[in-house]
Amino acid sequence: MVSQDKTAKVDFESLLRIFTVPEGPESTLTQIENSLSLNLNKFLKEHIVAEEKPLQEIEKDFKDSQLPETPSFVSEHTEHLLDTLVSHSVHTSSPSFIGHMTSALPYFLMPLSKIMIALNQNLVKIETSKAFTPLERQVLGMLHNLIYTQNDDFYAQWMHSAQHSLGTFCSGGTIANITALWVARNNAFPAQGDFRGIERQGLFKALKHYNYEGVAVVVSERGHYSLKKAADVLGIGRESLIPVKTDDNNKVCLSDLKAKLVELESNRIKTIAVVGIAGTTETGNIDPLTEIAALCKTHHCHFHVDAAWGGATLMSNKHRHLLAGIELADSVTIDAHKQLYIPMGAGMVLFKDPHSMASVEHHAAYILRKGSKDLGSHSLEGSRSGMAMLLYSSMHIISRPGYELLINAGLDKARSFAQLIKQQADFELVTEPELCLLTYRYIPQHVKSALQKAQGKQKRKLNDLLNGLTQFIQKHQRESGLSFVSRTTLTPKQWDNLTTTVFRVVLANPLTTDTILGNVLAEQREIAKAALSLNKQIDVTVTAIESKM
Amino acid sequence: MVSQDKTAKVDFESLLRIFTVPEGPESTLTQIENSLSLNLNKFLKEHIVAEEKPLQEIEKDFKDSQLPETPSFVSEHTEHLLDTLVSHSVHTSSPSFIGHMTSALPYFLMPLSKIMIALNQNLVKIETSKAFTPLERQVLGMLHNLIYTQNDDFYAQWMHSAQHSLGTFCSGGTIANITALWVARNNAFPAQGDFRGIERQGLFKALKHYNYEGVAVVVSERGHYSLKKAADVLGIGRESLIPVKTDDNNKVCLSDLKAKLVELESNRIKTIAVVGIAGTTETGNIDPLTEIAALCKTHHCHFHVDAAWGGATLMSNKHRHLLAGIELADSVTIDAHKQLYIPMGAGMVLFKDPHSMASVEHHAAYILRKGSKDLGSHSLEGSRSGMAMLLYSSMHIISRPGYELLINAGLDKARSFAQLIKQQADFELVTEPELCLLTYRYIPQHVKSALQKAQGKQKRKLNDLLNGLTQFIQKHQRESGLSFVSRTTLTPKQWDNLTTTVFRVVLANPLTTDTILGNVLAEQREIAKAALSLNKQIDVTVTAIESKM
Repeated sequence: MVSQDKTAKVDFESLLRIFTVPEGPESTLTQIENSLSLNLNKFLKEHIVAEEKPLQEIEKDFKDSQLPETPSFVSEHTEHLLDTLVSHSVHTSSPSFIGHMTSALPYFLMPLSKIMIALNQNLVKIETSKAFTPLERQVLGMLHNLIYTQNDDFYAQWMHSAQHSLGTFCSGGTIANITALWVARNNAFPAQGDFRGIERQGLFKALKHYNYEGVAVVVSERGHYSLKKAADVLGIGRESLIPVKTDDNNKVCLSDLKAKLVELESNRIKTIAVVGIAGTTETGNIDPLTEIAALCKTHHCHFHVDAAWGGATLMSNKHRHLLAGIELADSVTIDAHKQLYIPMGAGMVLFKDPHSMASVEHHAAYILRKGSKDLGSHSLEGSRSGMAMLLYSSMHIISRPGYELLINAGLDKARSFAQLIKQQADFELVTEPELCLLTYRYIPQHVKSALQKAQGKQKRKLNDLLNGLTQFIQKHQRESGLSFVSRTTLTPKQWDNLTTTVFRVVLANPLTTDTILGNVLAEQREIAKAALSLNKQIDVTVTAIESKM
Repeated sequence: MVSQDKTAKVDFESLLRIFTVPEGPESTLTQIENSLSLNLNKFLKEHIVAEEKPLQEIEKDFKDSQLPETPSFVSEHTEHLLDTLVSHSVHTSSPSFIGHMTSALPYFLMPLSKIMIALNQNLVKIETSKAFTPLERQVLGMLHNLIYTQNDDFYAQWMHSAQHSLGTFCSGGTIANITALWVARNNAFPAQGDFRGIERQGLFKALKHYNYEGVAVVVSERGHYSLKKAADVLGIGRESLIPVKTDDNNKVCLSDLKAKLVELESNRIKTIAVVGIAGTTETGNIDPLTEIAALCKTHHCHFHVDAAWGGATLMSNKHRHLLAGIELADSVTIDAHKQLYIPMGAGMVLFKDPHSMASVEHHAAYILRKGSKDLGSHSLEGSRSGMAMLLYSSMHIISRPGYELLINAGLDKARSFAQLIKQQADFELVTEPELCLLTYRYIPQHVKSALQKAQGKQKRKLNDLLNGLTQFIQKHQRESGLSFVSRTTLTPKQWDNLTTTVFRVVLANPLTTDTILGNVLAEQREIAKAALSLNKQIDVTVTAIESKM
C-alpha cells in the first residue's frame, strides 16, 4: 500500500502510514512530481501520446465496475496512471492547443495548489476556513472594484459585512450564471401582503400572486448554453429563455431586444433579467452593454452580464473600454479559470448592490448562524475548497499591470493572426477578433468564387460540402496531435446566413507565437489538400456551378 | 515577479518566465512545499497559530479593495501567505479536531493533486479531458455498483454509454442534492399532449397542465439545509420542503410520513420526492430506508437518499447493513470529500436508472453535441476539474477493504468514546453513535438531578444556562487551539424536548486516539469548572430548585 512495503497489505497499521508517512524522495510519485515541477511542458510532451487513441480503446482501461478488493502500491498505481490516464489526457497548456478557453498556468500555482489542497479548508463556514473567509471576501471585493469602481468607503462598509455579500466564489461560470438568475428571479417576486416571497412559496404562487402568465430571461442568440440550463433548473423552463437576433457583428440587435421586452410585458410575462454578453463563447463579441442597461432600467428588470470569459479584459486599462457599460450591470459572471490563468474550478459572480443576495440567504442551526460571516449563507454550493487563494496569489504576484500585458498580448496576437488569415488566398476570416477570439475556414479561391456565384440548392450543397471539409480538417488535426483548434457553426451574413462550420481559435496562451499560428494554417492546408485530392465532390460541384454560368 | 529577479518588474519577458521557469529548488515556495510534503502535521503545527486571533483582527490583512498595481516576488508573497493566511487557517487534519466531517488526507493525494492541477483538464467535454471522461464514468460506475450491485452486463451496457449517465461528479453534496431533486422534478412533469415538459415550459405551466396546486419534497426534520436551498432554487419554495417529525432516535417517523403523503395528495400537491437521510448531519442517524422506499412506490414519487456523509459506510461489509434499503433509492448523494478522504470539492449523485437524467440533458452546437460522451450534457455544473482522478487513485491504493478498515475503526472509536462519556459523572451522552458521530454535553451530577426535578419556567431557565455553558466551553476550547468539537442544538425526549445545545463529534480521522479523546473531555471539564466558579448562576438556580423540593 505504501511503496516501502514489499507487498501491498490491508491492515490498519499500513493504513495509518498512508496518513502519516509521506512518499519518499526516491518514490515513483515524487519523481514524477519533480519532473513535472521542473518542466511541465517537457513532462507532458513526453507523456501524452501525440496521436489520438480512439475513445473506445481508452475505455477498455476503465471498464471494470467493481471496486478494487486488493490495494495497489502507490508506485505501481502511479505508473498505471501515467500509462492509462496521463498519456491520453489533453495537453491544455500547449501553445499550439488554441481551441480552448483554458491555457497555460503560471508555474507558481502548482506548488501553491498543493498547499491549498493540504490545508483542505472548507469555505462554507468560518469554523473550517478562518482566514480563508476574509481572503475570499477580499478577492470578491477586488473584482467588484475592477467592475464597479466604488470608493474606499463602500468597500470598507460592505466587503467584510456579515449580513452582506459582494458576490460568491463558485466552481465555474455555469453556477455563477445560475446564481445571478436565481437572485434576479427571487428579487422579482418579493414578499407582498399575504405573499411570503418566491424563495418561500415558490414560482407557482409567485406568478399567481403577481398575476403574471409567465417568466422570461432575455439574451441574444449567442448566449451560453448554461443560461438554458439555468432557466430549466430555476423552474422557468428553457423556452422562457428568449433569444434575440444578433447583428452582423454577433451583438444583440437593440431594436429587436426592445420590441421583445415590450411584447413580453404586454403578454403579462415578467422579464426577470436581460443577459448581456461580454465575450460570446463562439465569436468573442461584446453586446452594447450601456444600451442594454438603459432598456433594463426602463423595463425594471435585472441586468446580468455574462463576462465569464471576457471579464478579464477589465484588467487592461488599454482595452477595458470594450466592456463599457458593464459597471451598470446588477450582476456579472467572471471565470478565473479562463483568462485569469487559474486552474479549473474557479468562477465568480459579483453583485453591484451588497443587498442583492439577501433574497437567497440561507441559515441553519448548526452552521451559517445569523450574524456569522460564513460564506455558505450566500452560496449555491455548500462545502467548497479554498480556490480563492490561488486567485489572491496570482493577483499579487502578477498584479493588475501584469494581467494587462497578458490581455493586451492576446488581443494583439488575435489581430495579427486575423491579418495572416486574410493574406492567405485559400482561407477566409469569418469573424474578426474583438477580443482574442476569431473564427475562420479553409476555402480555396476557386471554391469561394463558385460559392459566391451559386444559388439556391447548389449553393447550399457546396456550403455543406465545405462544412464537411472543415469538420474533417479539425478532427484530423486534433487526432494527429500537433495542434488543436475547436469548431462551431455560425450563420454569417456574407454567406446569406447559411449554416457555416468554422474553426474557432482563442489566443490566451502567452506562449503561442506567430510561428506556431503559421504552422497551424500550414497543417490545415495540407490536410485539406489531401482530402480534396481523395474526395472530388467539391471540385465536381464547383465545375457544375461554373459550367452553368 | 519571479524569484530570480532582483526587483519585481512587469514586462512581458518576466511574465513569460512565470509560465516557463519553475520555482528553483532553493526558492521559498519550493522549501515550504517540501517541508509540507515531508511532514504535513508538523508543518501545520509550526505554522498555524494555536490561539485564535479575532476575525476582526485577521480582516485587517485583507481589507484592501484595490487590485495590486505592483507585482510581488513569489518568495515574498509566499512569506506573506504563511504569516497572514496559513497561520490563521484551520488545522482540519489534526487528530484532535473532531468537530468536522473533513479529516486527514492520505499523503499520496498531495502529489497526485499537483499532477491533477498541472494537467488542468476540463471534464465538461471530451475535447478537453479525453481519458479523464471514461475514468470519471468508471468511478461513478464503481460507486453505483457499491450502492446498487447490478450485474456486469448492466455496467458493460450503461457505464460508458453516450446517451446515458449513472450519475454526475460535482463540487459537493449540495449540488448533488440539487441535481437529484432537479431530475425528480423534471421526471414528475414529463411532456404530455400539448405540454412539452417542465424542462421546456417551466413549473407554472407544468402545474397548470397537470392540475396541481403545488409541489412538495418531503424529508425528516433532520434534513440537511441544502434541501431547503434546493427547494428555493428549483422554484418549489422553501415552505414546500415538508418536514416530518423524527422518533427518539432521530429517524423519520414513518406513520407521520405516510400521513403527510396522503394529506399532500388529497390537497392536490404533487410530492416530487421523499428524501431519506443516511447519516444526519447533526446526529449521524439513518432513516428506515426500506420502509420509505415502499411508501415512495405506493405514492409514485422519486426516492432520494442523502448519504453525503454516511454513504461511505457501504465500503464496510460489516456495517453496510446499517444502510439497508439504499439500493431501492432512485438517487443517492455521496461526498468523497467526507469519509472517502478526498480533498474538498468532490461530491457525487448516482441514479439507479441510467435513463433518469434524460430529463435534464443539455446540448449545444459547439460542445456537448448529441451522441458525444461529453459529461457536461448531464451535469448542473459546466467546466469542471478532474477531481475524479483523486477518488480513482484512492479507490485503487486504499481499495475497498482498506476503506472498510477506516470505516470500522471510526465506528469502534465512536462507540468506545460513547462508553467513556457515559463513565463520566459530569458528562451526558445525548445521542448514541449509530455511525461515527455522537453528541453529548457537560452536566455535573448535582445539576442533572436538579434539572430532572425542576418544572416549567425553572427547568427552562436551568436548561438555558446549561446551553450557555456548552456554548462557552465549545468556543473557549476552539479558541485555545488544542482541540475542536462542533456544536448544534437538539430537542432530546429525555429532556422533554427542550432545546438543548450539545457538543458534536465526528470520529473519521484514523489518527485520533482514545488518549486524545480523553484529553478533549478533560479540557472541557477544566473550562467548565473555571466558568462555573466565576459565574454562579447555575449554582444559584440549582440551589433554588433543590430548596423548593
